Amino acid sequence: MTTADGATLGQIAVRFGLELKGDPATRVTHVGELKDAGPAALSFLADARYERYLADTKAAAVVLEPKLASQCQVAALISDNPRAAYARIAAWLHPPEPVRPGIHASAVIDPSAIVAESAQIGPHTVVGAHAVIGERVVVGSGTQIGNGVTLAEDCRLMARVTLYGGVRLGARVIVHAGAVIGADGFGIAQDRDGWVKVPQLGGVVIHDDVEIGANTTIDRGAIGDTVIERGVKLDNQIQIGHNVRIGEHTAIAACVGISGSTTIGKRCLIAGAVGIVGHLQIADDVVITGLSMVSSSITRAGVYSSGVPVSEAGAWRRIVARLRNIDELFDKVRVLERRHKLGDSENS
Amino acid sequence: MTTADGATLGQIAVRFGLELKGDPATRVTHVGELKDAGPAALSFLADARYERYLADTKAAAVVLEPKLASQCQVAALISDNPRAAYARIAAWLHPPEPVRPGIHASAVIDPSAIVAESAQIGPHTVVGAHAVIGERVVVGSGTQIGNGVTLAEDCRLMARVTLYGGVRLGARVIVHAGAVIGADGFGIAQDRDGWVKVPQLGGVVIHDDVEIGANTTIDRGAIGDTVIERGVKLDNQIQIGHNVRIGEHTAIAACVGISGSTTIGKRCLIAGAVGIVGHLQIADDVVITGLSMVSSSITRAGVYSSGVPVSEAGAWRRIVARLRNIDELFDKVRVLERRHKLGDSENS
Amino acid sequence: MTTADGATLGQIAVRFGLELKGDPATRVTHVGELKDAGPAALSFLADARYERYLADTKAAAVVLEPKLASQCQVAALISDNPRAAYARIAAWLHPPEPVRPGIHASAVIDPSAIVAESAQIGPHTVVGAHAVIGERVVVGSGTQIGNGVTLAEDCRLMARVTLYGGVRLGARVIVHAGAVIGADGFGIAQDRDGWVKVPQLGGVVIHDDVEIGANTTIDRGAIGDTVIERGVKLDNQIQIGHNVRIGEHTAIAACVGISGSTTIGKRCLIAGAVGIVGHLQIADDVVITGLSMVSSSITRAGVYSSGVPVSEAGAWRRIVARLRNIDELFDKVRVLERRHKLGDSENS
Repeated sequence: MTTADGATLGQIAVRFGLELKGDPATRVTHVGELKDAGPAALSFLADARYERYLADTKAAAVVLEPKLASQCQVAALISDNPRAAYARIAAWLHPPEPVRPGIHASAVIDPSAIVAESAQIGPHTVVGAHAVIGERVVVGSGTQIGNGVTLAEDCRLMARVTLYGGVRLGARVIVHAGAVIGADGFGIAQDRDGWVKVPQLGGVVIHDDVEIGANTTIDRGAIGDTVIERGVKLDNQIQIGHNVRIGEHTAIAACVGISGSTTIGKRCLIAGAVGIVGHLQIADDVVITGLSMVSSSITRAGVYSSGVPVSEAGAWRRIVARLRNIDELFDKVRVLERRHKLGDSENS
Repeated sequence: MTTADGATLGQIAVRFGLELKGDPATRVTHVGELKDAGPAALSFLADARYERYLADTKAAAVVLEPKLASQCQVAALISDNPRAAYARIAAWLHPPEPVRPGIHASAVIDPSAIVAESAQIGPHTVVGAHAVIGERVVVGSGTQIGNGVTLAEDCRLMARVTLYGGVRLGARVIVHAGAVIGADGFGIAQDRDGWVKVPQLGGVVIHDDVEIGANTTIDRGAIGDTVIERGVKLDNQIQIGHNVRIGEHTAIAACVGISGSTTIGKRCLIAGAVGIVGHLQIADDVVITGLSMVSSSITRAGVYSSGVPVSEAGAWRRIVARLRNIDELFDKVRVLERRHKLGDSENS
Repeated sequence: MTTADGATLGQIAVRFGLELKGDPATRVTHVGELKDAGPAALSFLADARYERYLADTKAAAVVLEPKLASQCQVAALISDNPRAAYARIAAWLHPPEPVRPGIHASAVIDPSAIVAESAQIGPHTVVGAHAVIGERVVVGSGTQIGNGVTLAEDCRLMARVTLYGGVRLGARVIVHAGAVIGADGFGIAQDRDGWVKVPQLGGVVIHDDVEIGANTTIDRGAIGDTVIERGVKLDNQIQIGHNVRIGEHTAIAACVGISGSTTIGKRCLIAGAVGIVGHLQIADDVVITGLSMVSSSITRAGVYSSGVPVSEAGAWRRIVARLRNIDELFDKVRVLERRHKLGDSENS
């Protein structure tokens, strides 16, 4: 059976261990969105916001939770975790491009580099001295790999990635275009007449199964290494300073900045555009909502926020003006409380 | 007449339909800033902050609004929209580099790609299988174009741009260096032992006359497409998540992040470093001021804000400390109001 | 003496003018972190957060302040500015890779460009017409240099840098991978049916000893130039709009955005993710803390903030809800004050 022709619902149910409600002979060839899917498409429902499309979907089948199965008018593949089940089925129906072993004629490979025969090295790439490229690694076009870099098996550098010298990637790491790993950390020392650059002599170690988004930057350590542990997922345009350590399976959304020497725990979720200052410790299982600022260590799992949602601009200007006088307001209330013999003893 | 020698004010007035106050034979060869312009320069005034330079300008002529013409000591080209009039004149006096048709010897073009004879393909570029490059397209040096990409006529990819497979650009789209279009969206499904990658199988469709800034990233859709409609202008370092749709003629300033599946209306203005969470609907003609967070849908045109301008740091620390106790302050005021038989019935 | 074998503490003390407490014959070969350093490593202590590691360090010697010398159980190199002293010693012990003069066979150099014989031009680079590359300049692999660019002596473009046409770099400028200098500023003029692009005709001038981080973008001026003065240090993913001017020795952390035509003074310190709107004047010696928004000019040296640290999410939601009613709270307090004949005359 090849996935080019798709698969029957019965095959899918068996392969992925799902309960099927519907005809096992029905064939799906691709995935589709609940509201647009055609009769050869497999869809999924894992977000309550999209439940309204379930009744009218034209999909062949929908991957969904047990409690929604009765509302599904088409075939249902039932899973306690429909998003993960869908992800696995979709990857099987739509496998990534196969690796095409070989080194493009325009690639510039240092003679001391070791490149696995099963690796694919694209056009206009550079592989530096003593670099080691593992089995089935794909080095996309325009990618620059510095001296002494090591890439374990099955890494995919999509295109135009830069790995500075000495960076080490574990197995199955995916790096998207424009990412820069191993540039100098921002180490400067103030002196009488300006700044002295502090040499950035550490490395970057990326463990297995990490994914790194487009135009994300991860700086090398000042002395020791910057470390991204196993299974971490980084979205686009994230900035990770020198000597940061990110614990396994933490996921970080786009535009987050993490300053130097901060340690993030395992299984944290950091939403978009959060800023975390340097030299902090963030515990395991911490969730930080979007546009928040973290300026001191977080020692307990939990959800943390400081983002303020928009108001109509005129109302917001009044709020900001009032905020500037909030100290005075507290004082006024204190005066009033004293008049009533309220206050410290009674209220606080 | 060639613009190499510039043009007379009379020629400009006729060509751009402007009223001229001054000598039509005066010749200008280039544009200049109001406060620095020399006697062969054309300048403009479209921002009240710069009116103070009008009296002393040495420019040959100034493009400005009717109401300012009487204050202009040099020649005036009068327009109700001096910025747009200036933009058109400047583009005519300083045309972009002409397209130089041809494919550089170092370009790697897949044999199945179709490249218009009038297109210019720069050095160290890659054009993937079945890509279609339209008439007069410029593909700048170091640019990587994936399989099946289509570029309509007159696109300009400046340098070191990455278009992943299947991305489609309309006519006259400009993409600046380092931009990455079509990387995988941030789709991950939580599972017992970490994350499962959700395949990102959709595309990116960019309509005509869009401009995309340096190092901006636009992710491909998870299933359907990410869509940037006609005439949208995107500044640098913007992040656009999977399945976002941006309505025509919306302009977005630098460092904005828009999370997945959000729809932005037409003619919106989004200022710098705004963050917009996923799965929202933003109406047409919405203005969002800088550093604001949008975390719920906006259904009506208007101006929205949540950015807080800086205070002196000590004062700000007091404000933040007070803010943490604001809940308690409301309670105290409620107690006081009760003493006075004020409160709910009377004030709110 | 070569640094390959390291140096004795005596040699270091003499060369860098430091007081030595300990055996001048002790040899160090590399630098190390205070808490991990081995017996051939030189370490330093310049941050009170790390004083706890001093007592147990295994380093051969520590660079530190006079007041800490007595607590140091190993050799001490004493300096009033231990970070700067360490930076200089580390750069001497670990010098950067030497320049390897020559032009890689894959480089595409316009015949009209002038390249110093001592310069190193890496693979897959482009050097445009009339560009001038100074003595000992390193042009890293994949770097694109536009027409008419000038690079003064000892610049290092690390890899995959883009310099648009006409950009000028002073001596010893370091530019990290993915940086884009000279892309068009975000100049658009609103017109009846969309936007007109305002041609961006100015340049970018970077003075001596500037360092520019990975994926940072600096736009060219609209008419005049964008200017980065001597000794400015820019971290990663910073966005600098057209016609910005940054004063000498100012340091800017990652993810900062500065909108067009703003002038920043000398010796300013701008922390991460700050946003500064356009057309402002920021005085010399201004410090802006992380995630702050600057929306009006700052005329006096000092420290400025508007970032709000995170709270537990439930508490934060209550604070935000209260904030939306703060205007009403002020009114209530005013009513209460009137009851007491307090208020304007007495309290404000």
